[in-house]
Amino acid sequence: MKLLPSFFLFSLGLATSFNGMTQSTELSKAEPADHVDFLDDQQAIDEFFRLALTESNVYQWLGDMCLNIGPRLSGSPQADQAVEFSYDLMVKLGLDARKQSLMVPVWQRGEAEQAFYKTSSGVSGEINVLALGGSVATEGDGLFAPIIEVASWEELEALGKEQIEGKIVFFNEKMDAENLYTFHSYGHCVRHRWGGAVEAAKYGAAGALVRSLNLRIDDFPHTGSMKYDEGIDSIPAAAVSTQDAETLSRLLAESQEVKVMMRQSCQTLPDKESFNVIGEIKGSEHPDRVIVVGGHLDSWDVGHGAHDDGAGVMQSLGVLELLNKIGYAPKNTVRVVFFMNEENGLRGAKKYGEWAETSGETHIAAIESDRGGFTPRGFHVDGSEAQLEKMLSWEKVLDKFGIHQVEEGGSGADIGPLKTDDNVLIGFVPDSQRYFDHHHSANDTFDQVNKRELELGTASIAALVYLIDKYGL
Amino acid sequence: MKLLPSFFLFSLGLATSFNGMTQSTELSKAEPADHVDFLDDQQAIDEFFRLALTESNVYQWLGDMCLNIGPRLSGSPQADQAVEFSYDLMVKLGLDARKQSLMVPVWQRGEAEQAFYKTSSGVSGEINVLALGGSVATEGDGLFAPIIEVASWEELEALGKEQIEGKIVFFNEKMDAENLYTFHSYGHCVRHRWGGAVEAAKYGAAGALVRSLNLRIDDFPHTGSMKYDEGIDSIPAAAVSTQDAETLSRLLAESQEVKVMMRQSCQTLPDKESFNVIGEIKGSEHPDRVIVVGGHLDSWDVGHGAHDDGAGVMQSLGVLELLNKIGYAPKNTVRVVFFMNEENGLRGAKKYGEWAETSGETHIAAIESDRGGFTPRGFHVDGSEAQLEKMLSWEKVLDKFGIHQVEEGGSGADIGPLKTDDNVLIGFVPDSQRYFDHHHSANDTFDQVNKRELELGTASIAALVYLIDKYGL
Repeated sequence: MKLLPSFFLFSLGLATSFNGMTQSTELSKAEPADHVDFLDDQQAIDEFFRLALTESNVYQWLGDMCLNIGPRLSGSPQADQAVEFSYDLMVKLGLDARKQSLMVPVWQRGEAEQAFYKTSSGVSGEINVLALGGSVATEGDGLFAPIIEVASWEELEALGKEQIEGKIVFFNEKMDAENLYTFHSYGHCVRHRWGGAVEAAKYGAAGALVRSLNLRIDDFPHTGSMKYDEGIDSIPAAAVSTQDAETLSRLLAESQEVKVMMRQSCQTLPDKESFNVIGEIKGSEHPDRVIVVGGHLDSWDVGHGAHDDGAGVMQSLGVLELLNKIGYAPKNTVRVVFFMNEENGLRGAKKYGEWAETSGETHIAAIESDRGGFTPRGFHVDGSEAQLEKMLSWEKVLDKFGIHQVEEGGSGADIGPLKTDDNVLIGFVPDSQRYFDHHHSANDTFDQVNKRELELGTASIAALVYLIDKYGL
Repeated sequence: MKLLPSFFLFSLGLATSFNGMTQSTELSKAEPADHVDFLDDQQAIDEFFRLALTESNVYQWLGDMCLNIGPRLSGSPQADQAVEFSYDLMVKLGLDARKQSLMVPVWQRGEAEQAFYKTSSGVSGEINVLALGGSVATEGDGLFAPIIEVASWEELEALGKEQIEGKIVFFNEKMDAENLYTFHSYGHCVRHRWGGAVEAAKYGAAGALVRSLNLRIDDFPHTGSMKYDEGIDSIPAAAVSTQDAETLSRLLAESQEVKVMMRQSCQTLPDKESFNVIGEIKGSEHPDRVIVVGGHLDSWDVGHGAHDDGAGVMQSLGVLELLNKIGYAPKNTVRVVFFMNEENGLRGAKKYGEWAETSGETHIAAIESDRGGFTPRGFHVDGSEAQLEKMLSWEKVLDKFGIHQVEEGGSGADIGPLKTDDNVLIGFVPDSQRYFDHHHSANDTFDQVNKRELELGTASIAALVYLIDKYGL
């Protein structure tokens, strides 16, 4: 499956304008890749989508990683396996592949958490929790303390030390159902997961329990990263399922007191070596000008890390597979980066970013896929007005595939360090409605990924890479 | 929850142009419904979406019907229960509700089907099948005969009576993965399910086995309606899962002979009375001008009939709930119709259509939701050029909600009889990628419906009803 030295085949056949494109909702048929004779960009892009839906291996790769390796928390044996699996895949695809060494934090969940509640009126029951990533363990046989509910920093402050000391602060802010784009609701609520333990500890809290960042009401707790600050007590913190958060809140309204017992045995170990995994197709005209496409290889330690972000890394690799299948030899270097440690440290992003600054290359664009393997809707663009305008002009050939939301916006955590005054960072935006049903939970499994939705995302990013490579940004 | 007599509140507040609308991806906040003071249509439509995501009962209704009643094949006790449940819902919503009597065919599956294969090389195994709707039973202890594979009518004809007689014809045409809009692939393949038994019987076949109309490879057989023709032997027909279709095809390539045993005990009973369920908000200015919104209440007899078409009927009812919640009193009558018997007879559609011709009313538009409860993408329009143009102009206020595919196209089976020279029939088009994972199978269950996607569909149709009511078509 080596790259065809076929750029010259394209240079005549591919018109440089969008003239003659069709607006049919069906794909126009292009000749097979070994008889490339595209009339225009629309035909090339149609072919990316046709190949993605019929020949792409992205779904197979994702299934192999999810089902044979499983979740891949930084520093875990599974993360090591995923590094080797990814490197081997890139080599098999004929890419110029390498591993970039870095040190990652190592946090281990230990035994499964246990938690239950007991009210002053004698009602008790189990609750579904997951320690937040980075949390300390509970001491002895566990923490057993009254809970006190807040929905904001203001409410916490108003309660003060007198009412909080010795208790477990229960952060119960609901994600706002009203935002069409669900990440906006996440962006608002995540502060309690990230900083809740620190803020609660300032008032002498013994622990923190945070409502899962999930728009559904169900039994899955959703973990995620949290911080401790120097000089503030490190108290144990866990996420509780939305269903159980509703129950606790109702019981608090009904009873004088609700106590929760939480027991978790997680720990942080010394840093360990891990890797970004990188593969590329060298540019035929400008090998030192780079278009990066990537996602993160690590995941949380529950479920399969299928949508977050197995989908993103395999789609990114799938972009290079599609360029290969279609026989398009890019003018610029197209590089796939599987970043390590996005979830709890961003060490891979920092490492690659530092390296990129001294590599002598120019990163003209970077595209990140880290919002799930759902049907494509558009791209969020971090660049100049002119660059956004140019991307908007490409909607003409992308719109028929449902890509109609090209907007100014954030790109992604892993590619953030690559921003310069001249380049463009882009976040791939699939439909966001289902993402937080899965995110950071045991419900993020391979069977929850639809093959076609995943493939359409791959084709969308491939089409964008093709347009950037051809016309610049 | 009665309708507010509040149209006069709107008539000043709502500008009749789209001036001043924002293109933000977030919802602009409107005042609560009892303090209606919209600046423009964008604000009204934003409010439909906000209410759908925060206050709609569509998901609850669908869950109640799916989990408490289950699948609702015409003539079944569950269909009767669904009629009563729906009528009660409409009454509770304060709608002018009624049941429209009609006769429906009654087909019963009987005992669960059994099927296995056995090859001439000694390999055997079970296969997952479902009798096609309307099929006759197998005789005695079941049919045991060699299978012969075809992918088209031409292949069937080429084999002829000599090679087909006494065998089970195995129609194994794959749905085309290449079509972006999956219904196009369905439209092509469904001929074998519908007419395969008749065509096979012409050559003396003993039975027909049809590959399930499913784009995934999995173990769910997908049933659906089939026909018999007078004068042609009625042979038993069943759908086989895609996974087993692949297996049978591979075994045929490897072995001299593959025999299949199929046993099914389905039967057709005399027609029985059933009902369309109808509710409406009478038009404040033109009570005799009607906008219909609907789906079908019946389903196949496996799974929950959740996407097909529990979603569609509950969304349609949810449209009237939203009009109510927002306090909008339509100028024209807005009528929800839960059609009975779409799956195997279309008797409800015919009945309503015949009645509509003599009712003295004018049906100015009808909108059908019968393509699953997925994220909205647009509408297919069966109307004049001018009517399509007008709807395209409304994309300005709908686009931010992902509704960007307003196109000429078919509307839906249940509203088809309502077409006149002047009116417009419209099919609601959600994202189609996952639909055939569920359609007509045990995998069409309530848990496969995402609450937000369902709600966004409701809001999309409500917005369209509002625009049609206000500006006409």
